[in-house]
Amino acid sequence: MLPVNFTPGPSQVYFTAEDHIRQAFRDGIPSISHRSKSFESIYREAQEGLSQLLNIPDGWHMVFTSSATEVWERSIENLVNEKCHHYVNGAFSGKYFDFAVMLGKNAGKSEVAWGSGFEVPAGPLDSEMIAVTQNETSTGVSVQNEWIANLRAYNPEALIMVDGVSALPHLQPEFSIIDSLFFSVQKGFGMPAGLGVWLMNERCVEKSERRAKAGYKNGTYHTIPSLISNAKKFQTPSTPNVLGIYLFSKICGDFLRRGVETIRRETVYKSTLLYNALDNHEIIKPLVKHKPDRSQTVIVADTGDKTGEIFEFLLKHGLQAGEGYGDGKKTQLRFANFPAHSKEVFEKLSDLLTRFN
Amino acid sequence: MLPVNFTPGPSQVYFTAEDHIRQAFRDGIPSISHRSKSFESIYREAQEGLSQLLNIPDGWHMVFTSSATEVWERSIENLVNEKCHHYVNGAFSGKYFDFAVMLGKNAGKSEVAWGSGFEVPAGPLDSEMIAVTQNETSTGVSVQNEWIANLRAYNPEALIMVDGVSALPHLQPEFSIIDSLFFSVQKGFGMPAGLGVWLMNERCVEKSERRAKAGYKNGTYHTIPSLISNAKKFQTPSTPNVLGIYLFSKICGDFLRRGVETIRRETVYKSTLLYNALDNHEIIKPLVKHKPDRSQTVIVADTGDKTGEIFEFLLKHGLQAGEGYGDGKKTQLRFANFPAHSKEVFEKLSDLLTRFN
Repeated sequence: MLPVNFTPGPSQVYFTAEDHIRQAFRDGIPSISHRSKSFESIYREAQEGLSQLLNIPDGWHMVFTSSATEVWERSIENLVNEKCHHYVNGAFSGKYFDFAVMLGKNAGKSEVAWGSGFEVPAGPLDSEMIAVTQNETSTGVSVQNEWIANLRAYNPEALIMVDGVSALPHLQPEFSIIDSLFFSVQKGFGMPAGLGVWLMNERCVEKSERRAKAGYKNGTYHTIPSLISNAKKFQTPSTPNVLGIYLFSKICGDFLRRGVETIRRETVYKSTLLYNALDNHEIIKPLVKHKPDRSQTVIVADTGDKTGEIFEFLLKHGLQAGEGYGDGKKTQLRFANFPAHSKEVFEKLSDLLTRFN
Repeated sequence: MLPVNFTPGPSQVYFTAEDHIRQAFRDGIPSISHRSKSFESIYREAQEGLSQLLNIPDGWHMVFTSSATEVWERSIENLVNEKCHHYVNGAFSGKYFDFAVMLGKNAGKSEVAWGSGFEVPAGPLDSEMIAVTQNETSTGVSVQNEWIANLRAYNPEALIMVDGVSALPHLQPEFSIIDSLFFSVQKGFGMPAGLGVWLMNERCVEKSERRAKAGYKNGTYHTIPSLISNAKKFQTPSTPNVLGIYLFSKICGDFLRRGVETIRRETVYKSTLLYNALDNHEIIKPLVKHKPDRSQTVIVADTGDKTGEIFEFLLKHGLQAGEGYGDGKKTQLRFANFPAHSKEVFEKLSDLLTRFN
């Protein structure tokens, strides 16, 4: 019996994933051409499923990349002539900023300590693109939609990119105040890694097309115009992870059948349990002190010098905690709270942590 | 019962693939971290397996990308300051050239008609990088190692990139006369799509590092220095298609157990059968007339106005021909001859085609 995996990605695989893959083999999905009608209907099913799940407005586009990391690169390459701005409070938001620097952009950042949230935006930024990481997977800090609404109010012209990795499908995106949202599937969607999903509105497409016309380079096969013109035919510019896209379409369907409200209610129930256990613990504490900044989907515990001991204690009971990120490796444990993690395992986890002393 | 798929990628999946994926689920592979020891040992197993299979010399590196298409882009971004040259005789070699143009390089090409091979190189090219597509999947034309040896003799300084898609593992690469070789796994390796494998020698690494030092931009997470520094730890810069890499390691093992010489001998047997059937046919002819240019692994038949009829005839007998590429869609059929295609199905295919009139 494998332990339940609480690492926030690659994480516990959703319980239906294996059966879907078996069915895919029975149906010959791993062999189909990405130019076939079969593939187009899989793409369409995935797009319709996600649209319903996240309530995506008409006019938004959905394309596939190999990862969210790839979207960091492609978004900067396709949407920034000169200036972008990044909100940085952890490893992943920091890497998005680093990519902008590597690509030679005039990149600004608003940086706060790991484990902290950001001050309310107090004025406009002189930037073409603003990047926000809705859920810092390294620290368990979440950005609220109200905060993004403030950012939008001061920056109506800028393209607001939201890295939704590890926030989705729990967090309901507010599509009217952002321009793009992306994630990889090995977090909240409970899938094997190797696929990124990138949503964008028409403003992103127009910006990339304007850049191309003005002689800027957007890239090669994974430029926004190339991704979008293929997506309109429910195709991809090059051979994608077809089996991953198939599985994504099926998992979206499973989530819809379970009901997104049910999933979200359970997510809150599970996170409340765990945060309560941590708040009331003698030794272990939540890393994020300010409650409104606390992620519901990635909960980071400050486990100090007991980290190794707690990890082993949980593992003995069939629960594999996620290691802390980077410097946090020795003093923190992370717990993903995704649809693949049942209420029962969260009850067990909270109970075990409460008993640990 | 699904038909046998002869499309040259995504193609027939190798018969062990599904069992390996089941085992992967049993072992929790879809959940493992790409920073874990388990992942490192999978990467190592894949590298050792491929090294043995292709007899890769010491000092060569193996890294993973999302596709061979990605390698077209990354190789140009990382290895070309100004000038590259492309041998173009089909859709895929043509796209590699197009990418160089899109990336603003001074790109030259030697172009011949689809279905033809290239003249023997007769002098040096003034280019930093020279791209050769060893097996044009769109047309079934193969480039021989002797031809590449000539190219190398005239261009000792240039980096010679070989797109090995659909040639491997059948064709034994001559590593001493090239600098890089890459492929995606949904062709000869009989895997679901979504993974590229990129081999390179130290000269490629040095060139990319020199570029970085001189202030050229190589990209972000998938630069050669980033890929290589991670590969030295048997890791990847970002979360890869872990399940794909696992499966690749297992398929390499399966090929080794079957014996690469056996696989190659069978490939020649199968291609000989089919070319004989085509050469002796009244209506259907091989697209590639010049025998030394004929690919052993992608065999293209000129089926003229009988194309649809032949396709349906074969399908009725459980064989799904690959469509012709691009303009060839209406008048050609393509037949992949990969390890996943048994001698028996090739005997049946040749027999059926011979009977068709």
